[in-house]
Amino acid sequence: MSNLEQKALDYHQAGAPGKIAIAVTKSVASQDDLSLAYSPGVAVPCVEIQRDPSLAYKYTAKGNLVAVITNGTAVLGLGNIGALAGKPVMEGKVVLFKKFAGIDSFDIEIDETDPDKLVDIIAALHPTFGGINLEDIKAPECFYIERKLRERLSIPVFHDDQHGTAIVVGSGLLNAIEMTGRDIADVKIVCSGAGAAAIACLELILSLGARRENIFVCDSKGVLTTARELDGEKKAWARDTPATRLSQVIEGADVFLGLSGPGLLSQADVKSMAKQPIIFALANPEPELRPELVREVAPDAIIATGRSDYPNQINNALCFPYLFRAALDSGASTINQEMKIACVVALAGMARSDERFGKDYVVPGLLDPRLLVGVTPKIAQAAFRSGVARKELDLEAYAAHLAKLGESLI
Amino acid sequence: MSNLEQKALDYHQAGAPGKIAIAVTKSVASQDDLSLAYSPGVAVPCVEIQRDPSLAYKYTAKGNLVAVITNGTAVLGLGNIGALAGKPVMEGKVVLFKKFAGIDSFDIEIDETDPDKLVDIIAALHPTFGGINLEDIKAPECFYIERKLRERLSIPVFHDDQHGTAIVVGSGLLNAIEMTGRDIADVKIVCSGAGAAAIACLELILSLGARRENIFVCDSKGVLTTARELDGEKKAWARDTPATRLSQVIEGADVFLGLSGPGLLSQADVKSMAKQPIIFALANPEPELRPELVREVAPDAIIATGRSDYPNQINNALCFPYLFRAALDSGASTINQEMKIACVVALAGMARSDERFGKDYVVPGLLDPRLLVGVTPKIAQAAFRSGVARKELDLEAYAAHLAKLGESLI
Repeated sequence: MSNLEQKALDYHQAGAPGKIAIAVTKSVASQDDLSLAYSPGVAVPCVEIQRDPSLAYKYTAKGNLVAVITNGTAVLGLGNIGALAGKPVMEGKVVLFKKFAGIDSFDIEIDETDPDKLVDIIAALHPTFGGINLEDIKAPECFYIERKLRERLSIPVFHDDQHGTAIVVGSGLLNAIEMTGRDIADVKIVCSGAGAAAIACLELILSLGARRENIFVCDSKGVLTTARELDGEKKAWARDTPATRLSQVIEGADVFLGLSGPGLLSQADVKSMAKQPIIFALANPEPELRPELVREVAPDAIIATGRSDYPNQINNALCFPYLFRAALDSGASTINQEMKIACVVALAGMARSDERFGKDYVVPGLLDPRLLVGVTPKIAQAAFRSGVARKELDLEAYAAHLAKLGESLI
Repeated sequence: MSNLEQKALDYHQAGAPGKIAIAVTKSVASQDDLSLAYSPGVAVPCVEIQRDPSLAYKYTAKGNLVAVITNGTAVLGLGNIGALAGKPVMEGKVVLFKKFAGIDSFDIEIDETDPDKLVDIIAALHPTFGGINLEDIKAPECFYIERKLRERLSIPVFHDDQHGTAIVVGSGLLNAIEMTGRDIADVKIVCSGAGAAAIACLELILSLGARRENIFVCDSKGVLTTARELDGEKKAWARDTPATRLSQVIEGADVFLGLSGPGLLSQADVKSMAKQPIIFALANPEPELRPELVREVAPDAIIATGRSDYPNQINNALCFPYLFRAALDSGASTINQEMKIACVVALAGMARSDERFGKDYVVPGLLDPRLLVGVTPKIAQAAFRSGVARKELDLEAYAAHLAKLGESLI
């Protein structure tokens, strides 16, 4: 076992099992306190919530509570390891929600792989939570599961592997495209990978102005073409081309978007791309091609990875804490396209206005303390303007509130 | 709105909504910490748990985590107010788990009343938790739901409204019966109420030595008799008697057990009971007959209620924190009859060995700090001896560990 591996195990077991616990936020020292927290006093908020269900946001943790839900079918790069084995990742997500946005969350690992049954189970849990973050559910079921839950529930439902990745990729790409003097309507994009994250990225990139005819997608069997039998979401990306391999379609491409696995991009591929190529090699932990190997053949390339030890780390934690923070605070019934785009634009803008902005800084750093205040109010504003928020926030007061919250975070 | 009502609402909304939050128990200050708590380090415990599922108790919060689950069909004395409106009570339970036994719990409110669907939903959540506390689910469905879940799952499942009440009632009754020089095999018992708690109490009392032929049960329609059409659990308590009303069967009774509602026991009823009657009037918040009114006609009666403002408070919190603490610490796959009886005996013994032991002290006080160390090891020992525990605890070391835990509690 390597040093990092042992450190990771030690970290998870030291002191207490795992990395999260429950905290009691009100005094329960005396019998009087208990008679408010529990019987008989607790009956009063119950009756009030029965009268007006929206009061649950005021009298219970629901007002600041997100579910992190998985069935363990596509955990990290580990694949279908099952609900139980996915628990450390879900508890990690709980940690990130708390650290970055002060959001409480419960991780729920569900032993169910049938999409309809999973939807029924998750839907039935809705009274508990103020929002639902779906996590590490495999494609193509994840598309169906998220869509059905969004239809059935009036609280935000967000599959982070799809949209979280898409939003951060979108913000980095916008900056990289602008920085290299390109027009998004003209860029040729080759995507390696056709899973949940890849499809969501491509859809978001379309809505940012890219054109479908400029995009080629490859899965493990090669280029998605009209000659192949394709299911579900992949079908929409089939091209009428005789090319079958990535190396054939990447010639002259402006952007490589990798959400696949190590070794799927070669130096020869990079050499055949347009000048100053944009390479988002996001396979984790091992990118499609290591940045130093990209640089050997394209020294001026703009490179992003999923790793913290290279510049331009594309990490969902740049967006999901702030999206849910804004959704909870504005009383949004959903996280819609307008809120996602607002997040893309806010993240891109934060990087652009930083003095470090350049080819090694197309997205903000994960630990940048300005994110909470810089991004969240813009998402809340988009929620209100698009008609899905219960309340309009005074943006100045809200930013001040967030600044204070940020200072209190771990 | 009364003063208490306003205080209860203020308590629940002040500062932050509700009364619980998530705490992060490990350092997440640096990028290095994050690489252990989340990707890439988090993959290591995932792989370990996939290899050996029992390691989830070591590397995740599962090792100290209980679900508090309701569908809101029988909340406190409020009835079927729905899952959402029941949330303050469930969060209150979370508070009690933490305060009394240092157990972390998540409350889960489920919008489902069909028993089979509810069983499927709860069963699917099993990877998340180390135990399941069912709460405020109405009779008769609660019997079926608990039985099915116990059959399907290999983690403890415990319906507190049934067994928690039964255990504390059992311990108080044992002491009251002994104190008044009675033999449990001979005591005549009249029970007002035939819901989940009542049936569970009666079954436990049987296993403590009472005899079915000495027990009469009344529901809202009167005495359960063989002349009536009765469903499910009530059937077993039907008596072949012409009596139809409580006042007819209570004559000469030694014990009145009330789990019904205010006004269902009269002074005339008490007068017709045996000398030095035992009156457990547990309707909450308003007992079947107020203690001061019992005293007017039976000054030497032993009286218990569910209230904190009278002596002998029968409260589930005297047992459920310690039962789950023992189950988690011993790796018990269930909470079985042996563990419940061990808890009854330990609670009764704690009261008996106290200098306050007497007719106003048949059960320990709810806030007695000796409970954790006094009760828990005996339950853990019963778990091991009855063959449902994964590990035998060194009882002396365990008691020392619990004493330290107790000092750290709020």
